[in-house]
Amino acid sequence: MFISVVGGGNCSVEEERLAEEVGQELAKRGATLICGGLGGVMEAACRGAASQGGTTIGVLPGNNRYDANRHVTIPIVTGMGYARNAIVAKSGQAVIAIGGKYGTLSEIAYALQSDIPVVGLGTWSLYKGGEVDGAIVTAEGPVDAVEKAISSARKAMRT
Amino acid sequence: MFISVVGGGNCSVEEERLAEEVGQELAKRGATLICGGLGGVMEAACRGAASQGGTTIGVLPGNNRYDANRHVTIPIVTGMGYARNAIVAKSGQAVIAIGGKYGTLSEIAYALQSDIPVVGLGTWSLYKGGEVDGAIVTAEGPVDAVEKAISSARKAMRT
Amino acid sequence: MFISVVGGGNCSVEEERLAEEVGQELAKRGATLICGGLGGVMEAACRGAASQGGTTIGVLPGNNRYDANRHVTIPIVTGMGYARNAIVAKSGQAVIAIGGKYGTLSEIAYALQSDIPVVGLGTWSLYKGGEVDGAIVTAEGPVDAVEKAISSARKAMRT
Amino acid sequence: MFISVVGGGNCSVEEERLAEEVGQELAKRGATLICGGLGGVMEAACRGAASQGGTTIGVLPGNNRYDANRHVTIPIVTGMGYARNAIVAKSGQAVIAIGGKYGTLSEIAYALQSDIPVVGLGTWSLYKGGEVDGAIVTAEGPVDAVEKAISSARKAMRT
Repeated sequence: MFISVVGGGNCSVEEERLAEEVGQELAKRGATLICGGLGGVMEAACRGAASQGGTTIGVLPGNNRYDANRHVTIPIVTGMGYARNAIVAKSGQAVIAIGGKYGTLSEIAYALQSDIPVVGLGTWSLYKGGEVDGAIVTAEGPVDAVEKAISSARKAMRT
Repeated sequence: MFISVVGGGNCSVEEERLAEEVGQELAKRGATLICGGLGGVMEAACRGAASQGGTTIGVLPGNNRYDANRHVTIPIVTGMGYARNAIVAKSGQAVIAIGGKYGTLSEIAYALQSDIPVVGLGTWSLYKGGEVDGAIVTAEGPVDAVEKAISSARKAMRT
Repeated sequence: MFISVVGGGNCSVEEERLAEEVGQELAKRGATLICGGLGGVMEAACRGAASQGGTTIGVLPGNNRYDANRHVTIPIVTGMGYARNAIVAKSGQAVIAIGGKYGTLSEIAYALQSDIPVVGLGTWSLYKGGEVDGAIVTAEGPVDAVEKAISSARKAMRT
Repeated sequence: MFISVVGGGNCSVEEERLAEEVGQELAKRGATLICGGLGGVMEAACRGAASQGGTTIGVLPGNNRYDANRHVTIPIVTGMGYARNAIVAKSGQAVIAIGGKYGTLSEIAYALQSDIPVVGLGTWSLYKGGEVDGAIVTAEGPVDAVEKAISSARKAMRT
C-alpha cells in the first residue's frame, strides 16, 4: 500500500506534529509513504515513518538527490520543478493533505482528477456555485486520517 | 500580452458562450490566448479569438498536433498528459478560469503558486479554516473577466 | 509549418552563424521557429528569424518568461527544467540540430522516437553495433538544412 | 546505492538474458534497481533483481500503477509519457544501458547531461565531428557492467 502525504514545505508546529504522527501510523500499518521529499510537512511525515522503520519515497523537484530530507529512504530525482506534484499525487493509492498552500492544492487537484481518494487534515475546502465539493474526506486527527486513507485506498482497489 | 483561459473539456452551453466571448474580447485587445488546445471551454475560447483574428496557442497533453481543436494556430505538443496543466497556467500573464473541474483546479493552483493573477467566471472558490481565500478575483461576465485579467497582468508586470 | 531548431546554449561563432542563417531561411519560407528560448544556437536562430519578421517560440525550462532571449516572440513557460527538451522536439514537424551537447542529443532522441525528421549540421552521429544509424539527415549548410527540414516535414505530413 | 537500467521495451532474447543477469548482480550487491517499469529489458532486469530479493522501482509513463511489470516493488506513476525518461536517468547514481532504441538514447543523453556515469552493453555509440565521444563506458558483460556502474557511482559520490 502506497499513501502520499502532501502539505507545506513551511508549516506550523501543529501541522508538523500531525504530519509526524501520520507518518508513524502509516509505517505501523506497513504502508509506504510517498511525498515531495523536502521540508515542513514532508520532512515531519518522513521522520515519523522512519521512526517506525517505514519506507519513505521523496519525489524531488530539483536535480540533486541530496535535496531530500534525511528521512527519505528512496529519492526520486525529477528535475521538473513543481510539475512533480502530479507524480506525488498519482503515485499514492490515497492522499493525506495536511494544511498546505497552492502547491498542496495542485496535488489535491491531481489526485481527485485521477480518482484517487483525498483525506484532509486542516487543509483546503472546495466550493463551486456556493456548494461544497464533498470529494475531500475530513479527518478528525492523524490516526483517523490514516485509517480513512487506507480504507478508501482499499475500496478504490476493489473497483 | 498572453492570457490563459482554462476550463472543462466538457462544459455547459452557458460556459461555452462565456468562453467564446472571452476569446473574442482577448483578441480585440490584442492579447494572445493560451489554453490546453482541446474541446469545451478551450475550443470555444479559441473560436472566439480566431473570429477576431487573434493568435491561439494550444498546449496539448498528447503526442499528436492534430489533437488540437481547429481554431488553434500554434499547437505545442507536450506528450506529458495533464502535467501540461502547469505549462498552461505558467505561460499566461493572467489566467481566466471558466467553470471547470479538477483539471481546472490544478491550473488555478499552479497559477496562484506562481503569483499569476486568476480571474474566475463560475469556477471554484477556495476555503481554508472556514475562511475564503481571496486570491481568485470574481468577474461579472466575459468583458469584466478580460478587463480584470489584463489590468491585473499589467499590475503584476510592474512589480 | 513549425520547425524546431536545437543546439547548445553555449556554441562556437561558426555554429552561431549557421543558426542565424537557418533562422533567416525558415522565416523567409514562412515557417515558425520553435526552440528552447535561451542563448547560443537558440538565440542566434531567433535573431535570424526575427530579422525576417518570423514568429519565434521559446519553450523555456524555468519559471520566468523574461529568461527568454529578446528575439522570442512567444515564450512558453514550462518550469520543468530540461524535461522541456521533449516538448521542443515534439512540437516541430521537423528538427534541425546544430552542433550541441547532451541536451541536444536528448532532443534528437525524442524527435526520432516520435518519427519526426531530424536534419543535422555538425551535430551527433549515432552508431549501433558498429553501424551508423541513418536517421539523422546530414545537411551541407543552412539553406540545405532548411530545405531538407521542410521537405521531410511535408513528406511526414502526407503519411 | 541506486542504479538505473535502461533499454528497449521490446528486446532480443540475448538482451533479455543480459538484463536479467544485470538485475541479479545489482541485487546481490544491495543496489536498488530503477527502471521504466514496463516490459523487455525493464522487466528482465526487475525479474533478475526480484529473484535475489532486491528492491525494484518502476517509473511508469502512464497513469496506471498496474501497467508495471510484476517484478516492480515500487511503482512511481508519472502520467508524463516518455518525458519520464528524464526521471529514470536522473534518479540513478549510474545508468546501465542495454541495447535500446531512441527512448534509451534519450535516457543516456539525460544521464550524461547530469554528469551521471553511463555503462553500455551493446547500446549506442556517439560520434561528433568524426570522433567518438568517450562518455559511455563499454562493459564486457553483465557482471562487468554492474561493477563498472557501482564503482563509477562511488567515484561520482566522492566528487
